Amino acid sequence: MAILSFLSRASRTYKGYPKLLVLCTLSLSSGGLVAYSESQPDTRAPHVDPNEKEPKKKRVVVLGTGWAGTSLLKDLDASLYDIQVVSPRNYFAFTPLLPSVTCGTVEARSIVEPIRNIVKKRKGEVKIWEAECVKIDAANNKILCRSNIENNLVGNREFFLEYDYLVIGVGAQVNTFNTPGVKENCHFLKEVEDAQKIRRSVIDCFETAILPGLSEEERRTNLHFIIVGGGPTGVEFAAELHDFLEEDLVKLYPAVKDLVRITVIQSGDHILNTFDERISSFAETKFRRDGIEVQTGCRVLSVSDKDITMKVKSKEEVCTVPHGLVVWSTGIATRPVVRDFMEQVGQAKRRVLETNEWLRVKGCENVYAIGDCATIDQRKVMEDILSIFEAADKDNSGTLTVEEFKDVVDDILIRYPQVDHYLKSQRHLRDVTDLLKDPQGNDWQEVNVEQFKLALSHVDSQMKSLPATAQVAAQQGAYLSRCLNHIIQCEENPEGPRRFRGSGRHRFRPFQYKHFGQFAPLGGEQAAAELPGDWVSIGHSTQWLWYSVYASKQVSWRTRILVVSDWTRRFIFGRDSSRI
Amino acid sequence: MAILSFLSRASRTYKGYPKLLVLCTLSLSSGGLVAYSESQPDTRAPHVDPNEKEPKKKRVVVLGTGWAGTSLLKDLDASLYDIQVVSPRNYFAFTPLLPSVTCGTVEARSIVEPIRNIVKKRKGEVKIWEAECVKIDAANNKILCRSNIENNLVGNREFFLEYDYLVIGVGAQVNTFNTPGVKENCHFLKEVEDAQKIRRSVIDCFETAILPGLSEEERRTNLHFIIVGGGPTGVEFAAELHDFLEEDLVKLYPAVKDLVRITVIQSGDHILNTFDERISSFAETKFRRDGIEVQTGCRVLSVSDKDITMKVKSKEEVCTVPHGLVVWSTGIATRPVVRDFMEQVGQAKRRVLETNEWLRVKGCENVYAIGDCATIDQRKVMEDILSIFEAADKDNSGTLTVEEFKDVVDDILIRYPQVDHYLKSQRHLRDVTDLLKDPQGNDWQEVNVEQFKLALSHVDSQMKSLPATAQVAAQQGAYLSRCLNHIIQCEENPEGPRRFRGSGRHRFRPFQYKHFGQFAPLGGEQAAAELPGDWVSIGHSTQWLWYSVYASKQVSWRTRILVVSDWTRRFIFGRDSSRI
Ligand SMILES: Cc1cc2nc3c(=O)[nH]c(=O)nc-3n(C[C@H](O)[C@H](O)[C@H](O)COP(=O)(O)OP(=O)(O)OC[C@H]3O[C@@H](n4cnc5c(N)ncnc54)[C@H](O)[C@@H]3O)c2cc1C
Ligand SMILES: Cc1cc2nc3c(=O)[nH]c(=O)nc-3n(C[C@H](O)[C@H](O)[C@H](O)COP(=O)(O)OP(=O)(O)OC[C@H]3O[C@@H](n4cnc5c(N)ncnc54)[C@H](O)[C@@H]3O)c2cc1C
Repeated sequence: MAILSFLSRASRTYKGYPKLLVLCTLSLSSGGLVAYSESQPDTRAPHVDPNEKEPKKKRVVVLGTGWAGTSLLKDLDASLYDIQVVSPRNYFAFTPLLPSVTCGTVEARSIVEPIRNIVKKRKGEVKIWEAECVKIDAANNKILCRSNIENNLVGNREFFLEYDYLVIGVGAQVNTFNTPGVKENCHFLKEVEDAQKIRRSVIDCFETAILPGLSEEERRTNLHFIIVGGGPTGVEFAAELHDFLEEDLVKLYPAVKDLVRITVIQSGDHILNTFDERISSFAETKFRRDGIEVQTGCRVLSVSDKDITMKVKSKEEVCTVPHGLVVWSTGIATRPVVRDFMEQVGQAKRRVLETNEWLRVKGCENVYAIGDCATIDQRKVMEDILSIFEAADKDNSGTLTVEEFKDVVDDILIRYPQVDHYLKSQRHLRDVTDLLKDPQGNDWQEVNVEQFKLALSHVDSQMKSLPATAQVAAQQGAYLSRCLNHIIQCEENPEGPRRFRGSGRHRFRPFQYKHFGQFAPLGGEQAAAELPGDWVSIGHSTQWLWYSVYASKQVSWRTRILVVSDWTRRFIFGRDSSRI
Repeated sequence: MAILSFLSRASRTYKGYPKLLVLCTLSLSSGGLVAYSESQPDTRAPHVDPNEKEPKKKRVVVLGTGWAGTSLLKDLDASLYDIQVVSPRNYFAFTPLLPSVTCGTVEARSIVEPIRNIVKKRKGEVKIWEAECVKIDAANNKILCRSNIENNLVGNREFFLEYDYLVIGVGAQVNTFNTPGVKENCHFLKEVEDAQKIRRSVIDCFETAILPGLSEEERRTNLHFIIVGGGPTGVEFAAELHDFLEEDLVKLYPAVKDLVRITVIQSGDHILNTFDERISSFAETKFRRDGIEVQTGCRVLSVSDKDITMKVKSKEEVCTVPHGLVVWSTGIATRPVVRDFMEQVGQAKRRVLETNEWLRVKGCENVYAIGDCATIDQRKVMEDILSIFEAADKDNSGTLTVEEFKDVVDDILIRYPQVDHYLKSQRHLRDVTDLLKDPQGNDWQEVNVEQFKLALSHVDSQMKSLPATAQVAAQQGAYLSRCLNHIIQCEENPEGPRRFRGSGRHRFRPFQYKHFGQFAPLGGEQAAAELPGDWVSIGHSTQWLWYSVYASKQVSWRTRILVVSDWTRRFIFGRDSSRI
């Protein structure tokens, strides 16, 4: 899966060009921007006390240096704000390449960039604290942080930070669905360290399986790799592992090569079920041909250090299978610090932290939440239908003419993006005013409230919450930085849609997500991609597209060059199997 | 410090050529050999049972995949022997670049090569077990091994291996001299993992020191880096750390850059005291200029998690200094498994395992020991003086003519290398027969036993044990593989010197070490080198020589390219400070 933000633009520009050209041009062009700004370092010495008074600047505290936080920090104007960043890791990690790190196709160092490097070009100072936020005190506008470095260094590891604006971008944690034994016995694939641990453990499995004195059964058990979760991450890891095995390990461990087994366990009916059906069935066929077992319709009941117990849904049958290594990759859950915060702001009952369409946390004036840690609660048209009607009915006639409707249409489309999605999903509607037709397809000259309700009664059906992807997180970060940078200008000259349930306009347009498609690398130099406009592309050429997009999306020239040279090294020398 | 094995040859060949040419040619030429042989992989499936009977082949078990073991395995003929390798790590590590890994100048992966890759080109199968030898049972020709992988995999982790020949190449462990607190509170720099841990910890020190709420004193403490041991490793680490700081960290942590302190503690009077005096005083001057403190004549009494206590020898004064990180790099000690073995073979009282000049363990017929784990007990000429005299005195006249002496001179020079060293150290002796001169410098026509003893009485003064270096270990491994490969031919046609205390000839020439010099990188793109022929070279050009030699000595083309591209990356982008 991948962010294809460049892709739609690229596919227009480069249609028909040879792949390599696309690769080079994409990487060079997008990287150029980054490199240019990187070449202006700022080495002024900042002071260290974060709570000192700088009366002119408002304090923005950003939690997290993942996709959301980093994208925000890249553009947030440090001459306007006193910016402080709190994150337990001092770098940004390019998560879409994490599965490649598990088998050494790409090195861990090649996909990380110190956050200080990313922000050091800023116009003002950005203070960065490698610590975890352990408590948000929303009532007092402050947070408690704790350094999580485990060593013997001196000094108090806890400190408070005060904020005027808080941006929560702490991402999510792995969801074990409280399945017994998962935390203790499974690998996860969320952080860089996880990927490194998996890499070592895969080698451990081989080194142990080959030792003298084991029965063949024991060797088989140690070489049984189980992946729980048939989403893009699990599938990509399975494919990587299979490639690693076929291309490298068979040569080094020939004695046990026939004993390896890879199983993907999926609770749904198909793997990659968020993808187009053609992709998911291609993936299943390819996996079957490669000898990767796919067990769909299976729910894991528990995992012990030696085996995994699951229930095959259709047969109501429970079976237990021994394993060598289990990677758990099934979904995400809210972090404790966010849970606690949700209770403070009256969201205790919700599953995920909710924001409004401007990414502001509901129930809190000055806290924003972006990325995987939050979800947008999109307002329904039907909730506001009366206000919309009143606002549109300028002459207060109790009926709406098409002209009057046209006057508010743009604001409606901006304020309620689901209307646009609905129009696109209904082939017979060419224009939003087509909504205002009677059941026979004739234009209504005027509509009353009830008819208006009826006309718009289906538009909310196209609302769906955004996926938890880097693509969304990065767009939200960029959106929010723009808002914060223009907060004063937009106070005076609001640029948002009109307020239907109040007067005037919103300061900003609400956040709007642009989906650029997604990738699923399937191993053996083949990938599948779902591109905008329902376009599906599968095969070797798609893998090249994948290479070019992923190279272009790197956060710095350093990582871009490292990633490309890792790929090249892998082609020439294979993957390294040293256990470090 | 470095193995300059190519250097003396290279300096002859390339004298006067530009440095870069030397770099390229050296890397390419030496690498070429490796790459050629690498290109012939062998993928026949081996069987796994190691104790199966293969009546024709003798079983050689090799312990360790360090410099000694790997150098042995590179050439040991797998068509002659059933070869099994036991080592707790499945790769070879290029230790001379370990100090560069501590600061990210070179990546850990770039200096390791899987041992299976190194041996997979062999004519026969080489079995490799990732395990530790925990017990050598010399009486029964078998060893007990234990896998040290900590995980949940199934199967018995312990197994026995039987051998006909055992080669011990397990290296040495860190010597703490039983100083209290060292094991718990110090970093070591011996394994790849150690270097990675140091890298993370250095970043931890900075991230902690910069946190809000610390006093300046606390920041200073966290940024006090202490290196115990002023040998080549300690000095190189100090230089690397200083470079990392100056070139990278000052830009990223400007707020605390002036609080950093690096101290090298050395018990002797000078750092680098195994080097030429000019080098050690250059190093001290350079360090002083760079602000690295050098405390000589200091003995560490104890280390706690917060501070280090030491005694300044000259003043009999004890002082305690707070620290952020201590790297302990003072010398080596025998591993427990070797200690236990020494007791079995009657070497309980010795400090180090002793072998004879053919690297065979004393007190054991079929066990060899190479590298850091052993030392050669060179036989003294004076111990054999009577036998030599008798052997040389062909006509049993009781006196030796110069002619008779000349007849045995070659054998003496081979059997007792100290004689040659002695001759070279005495300017007035041009030839070994010059020894047979009377005190006035006139040739003796004939010498009797007492005169003969007198003539050779000083030659043993030039005996010294070999240093524990990669250079020695690699040469020993290569020597031993040649011996084992030719054991049958040489049984029939011995190629060694005559046996003075027996009849016939030795099968092989004894091991003879060739010293090619050593390097000391001092940071700031400067290095010092001690080259053969008392030649000392210091400065930037020496650093280039260092680059070229280290690139050329890499064990594979993969690591060679990786190391060179790491250096290049560092020049362009600096070192990565992400804490992973
Ligand atoms: C293996 C893998 C592959 C993926 N592939 C793709 C892909 O191909 N395409 C795609 O679009 N998406 C992909 N995703 C999803 C994508 O990574 C996430 O959607 C994205 O990272 C979300 O960004 P975020 O900033 O919200 O959270 P994250 O990127 O997870 O960042 C969270 C940040 O918050 C920090 N943090 C955590 N706790 C605290 C705390 N208490 N206080 C302060 N800071 C804290 C973390 O250290 C981290 O810096 C993948 C994810 C994974 C795990
Ligand atoms: C940081 C550093 C820098 C150095 N720089 C230089 C330099 O520039 N030039 C130079 O000449 N020398 C250098 N040296 C010294 C050099 O590394 C050693 O002399 C050399 O490694 C010795 O080789 P060895 O094979 O005897 O031991 P090692 O290389 O230490 O290898 C020992 C092997 O035995 C294995 N082993 C350990 N215990 C067991 C067991 N119980 N059973 C089986 N196997 C076991 C280990 O895993 C390892 O594979 C350096 C050393 C260090 C630590």
